[in-house]
Amino acid sequence: MTGEWNAKLRAVEELRGALGERLVLDAALIAPYARDTSRARPEGAPLALVLAESTADVSAALAWAHEHGVPVSVRGAGTGLTGGAMGYDGGLIVSLERMNRILGIDEANRLALVQPGVVTGELDDACRERGLFFPPDPASARLCTVGGNIATNAGGLRCVAHGVTSDSVAALEVVLADGRVLRTGARTRKNVVGYDLTRLFVGSEGTLGVITEATVRLKPVPPGTPRTFRAAFDRLEDAGRAVTAIVGGSAQPEVLELMDALSVEIIESFHPTGLTVPDGAMLVGQTVGADAEAKAERIIAICAAQGATDTGISDSDALLEARRLSNPALNARGLKISCDVGVPVASLAEMFHGVEEIAVRHRKRVSTVAHAGDGNLHCTVEAPDDAAGIAAADLVIDDITRLALSLGGTISGEHGIGSVKRHELPWQLDATALDMQRLIKDALDPRGILTPGRAI
Amino acid sequence: MTGEWNAKLRAVEELRGALGERLVLDAALIAPYARDTSRARPEGAPLALVLAESTADVSAALAWAHEHGVPVSVRGAGTGLTGGAMGYDGGLIVSLERMNRILGIDEANRLALVQPGVVTGELDDACRERGLFFPPDPASARLCTVGGNIATNAGGLRCVAHGVTSDSVAALEVVLADGRVLRTGARTRKNVVGYDLTRLFVGSEGTLGVITEATVRLKPVPPGTPRTFRAAFDRLEDAGRAVTAIVGGSAQPEVLELMDALSVEIIESFHPTGLTVPDGAMLVGQTVGADAEAKAERIIAICAAQGATDTGISDSDALLEARRLSNPALNARGLKISCDVGVPVASLAEMFHGVEEIAVRHRKRVSTVAHAGDGNLHCTVEAPDDAAGIAAADLVIDDITRLALSLGGTISGEHGIGSVKRHELPWQLDATALDMQRLIKDALDPRGILTPGRAI
Repeated sequence: MTGEWNAKLRAVEELRGALGERLVLDAALIAPYARDTSRARPEGAPLALVLAESTADVSAALAWAHEHGVPVSVRGAGTGLTGGAMGYDGGLIVSLERMNRILGIDEANRLALVQPGVVTGELDDACRERGLFFPPDPASARLCTVGGNIATNAGGLRCVAHGVTSDSVAALEVVLADGRVLRTGARTRKNVVGYDLTRLFVGSEGTLGVITEATVRLKPVPPGTPRTFRAAFDRLEDAGRAVTAIVGGSAQPEVLELMDALSVEIIESFHPTGLTVPDGAMLVGQTVGADAEAKAERIIAICAAQGATDTGISDSDALLEARRLSNPALNARGLKISCDVGVPVASLAEMFHGVEEIAVRHRKRVSTVAHAGDGNLHCTVEAPDDAAGIAAADLVIDDITRLALSLGGTISGEHGIGSVKRHELPWQLDATALDMQRLIKDALDPRGILTPGRAI
Repeated sequence: MTGEWNAKLRAVEELRGALGERLVLDAALIAPYARDTSRARPEGAPLALVLAESTADVSAALAWAHEHGVPVSVRGAGTGLTGGAMGYDGGLIVSLERMNRILGIDEANRLALVQPGVVTGELDDACRERGLFFPPDPASARLCTVGGNIATNAGGLRCVAHGVTSDSVAALEVVLADGRVLRTGARTRKNVVGYDLTRLFVGSEGTLGVITEATVRLKPVPPGTPRTFRAAFDRLEDAGRAVTAIVGGSAQPEVLELMDALSVEIIESFHPTGLTVPDGAMLVGQTVGADAEAKAERIIAICAAQGATDTGISDSDALLEARRLSNPALNARGLKISCDVGVPVASLAEMFHGVEEIAVRHRKRVSTVAHAGDGNLHCTVEAPDDAAGIAAADLVIDDITRLALSLGGTISGEHGIGSVKRHELPWQLDATALDMQRLIKDALDPRGILTPGRAI
């Protein structure tokens, strides 16, 4: 064992030669980088942390890990919810927080070139100064980083209008497992040259390479003031039909969220905005553009036709801000274990009902909020802070997840798989699909050093 | 040799046992299936043709080819422009033309389940009867098939508004090289479960698997009558600035095409619509929706501000129909050898000018039409019908392609690589990127039977 330890120390000295003080060995300094925001538990003591400042740093770190067979976890801001960025025992952590520069904004072509550690909300701010915006908007936009958004193909509230993160990525620079640097994609809207490697890396959760630069697509900021609308429903079916009618109609919303009564009650008590708790569910959303008011009115008319009992339009977005901050509100009330399933939009009402039945069966409180326009739901289950309580809540999540699959849905809409949802993978993917993932992983990372044992 | 021939005959008998009369061995019947619409030359005599009627047929054919090491070409309607579907000497051709059923249209979730041999325009027609439409619209939509569109990630005129084919594909059924059946994607808008295999197969040009079923996304038909607009410019720079201003503005067009003077003259003489040939270039496009007229007026105002000399708005789409039929018009005037490059939108005017200079240098007539909204250009070079003439035109195409790359562009926007553009691949992709393509190809098709030697 002493021989092995000495070899390891010599190897680390090699890496220090390449990285200098950007290689951190102090366990106390490393610890905060070994966690994410999920309920995953640390897997031991990482060996070292790389505070990468350049593509060359990442390349040196990966080439070293590849040579020595050291597992690597990759970290942006650590806001992930599925354990994907947790450190490994004896592993290397590559942090991209220092690679946080916006390298350029090309207004005419509506593209930005960014390093992975740029905070998503700060990129959006910089674009808005130029009349453009960055469409992806995960709820953690003020904290999370663009690189993490791309690595997990993050979603958010605006996906009903602008798609997911992958729809906003034009090109990537990626450091491969062996340290080589790959450039994918193009600066053009259309590009059919070889396989779509950009999309392969988007959402690959650190298992195929480390993103060190991204060319992202921007959109022009719509003119006028956004309108926020709300519609309360006594019955879930009515709300569900309203959602289907809205997304299939000509007045397209920028945001369309559906909350069950428990969610509204909890969010309202945490951030009072004057909402009345509905008997069934509440739709809230936003329209933008010069015709934002007219579109909001058409959407409210659809809601009224489907039986909405209380509706309103406002130019304040307090309601949506409250919705964005629903997680702390739920946590404060003991609802802590959440999931991220998705169903086809027309099955939303059936899904909400099914979740209610599951909650009754398990005798647990479960709140549900949905990015209704794209069918993505976050159900949060109450759980005491002990292992037995969490295990009981996990059983509820399992039932909810299987229900989503039975409705033609998905086990993850926007959070990814990481380690937390890995046991669910075979519920959705058959043996052939799992084998394809493995074939690609083995081809690109033959020594299995990149985020091993997660995501696929 | 006789032993080898006998073994091959025995092997073919095996396949006939599985496929019956769906296996065609008559060379005269096979020949039409061995060609596409490109200038690629046949590579010899294919062994057999499979007129597949089911996923099981495709699976049997590929398992057989995998076992016997027989190269396979895959064919929809044969409208490809890069030689991707050409038969191989001694190879198997898998035709999907009989798998031409629309299996279902889910109006509420705006999804269609289709077999690959469905003609694109017919799918669109069926959707429109239900108030929906299928966004991809390659110029060959009345002839080409959805499977071919997906295999090549085809583009078209509406990409400025709706993206490329991959943006409309939710899930696939694919037969892998060894005959196994893979299911990718999900019916939900968001899905981050494993690698994005759907996107990996879209645009893979038959080299990774054969698409046997697709779930595609539909959109609601906008209300009102579309408006067609046109604006003539004396100077290319003015037209280029107008394009940049339009795509960055709030009145988004459904179609935005830029034609040089030679193209306008040729198209107008073939399909007279009353156009005056401009000194510089002509923008034509379309707006849709309840506010189509207002949007067209805003776009025309932008064009006027940038120096347009002659503008107009109409509710007839004769102008766009003429544009869609530009290829036969060009061919009739001896302009036959075309390319499919792309540049960032803001570089369009520079690209048009550069093409003019290249034409002068080579003393060849070259017409250029661009899907201006997405920066994709088709330059067509005059060429007599002989090898020397085609070779001379190819040199012009090479120069145009290198110019596009020098402007940050791409060698192919929507036609793909096939065999015709394969020599250009290393101009755009470096050794690492080419190696990644090869690693993935070898992992998924280890015996190299699927469309070998093309696309990557």
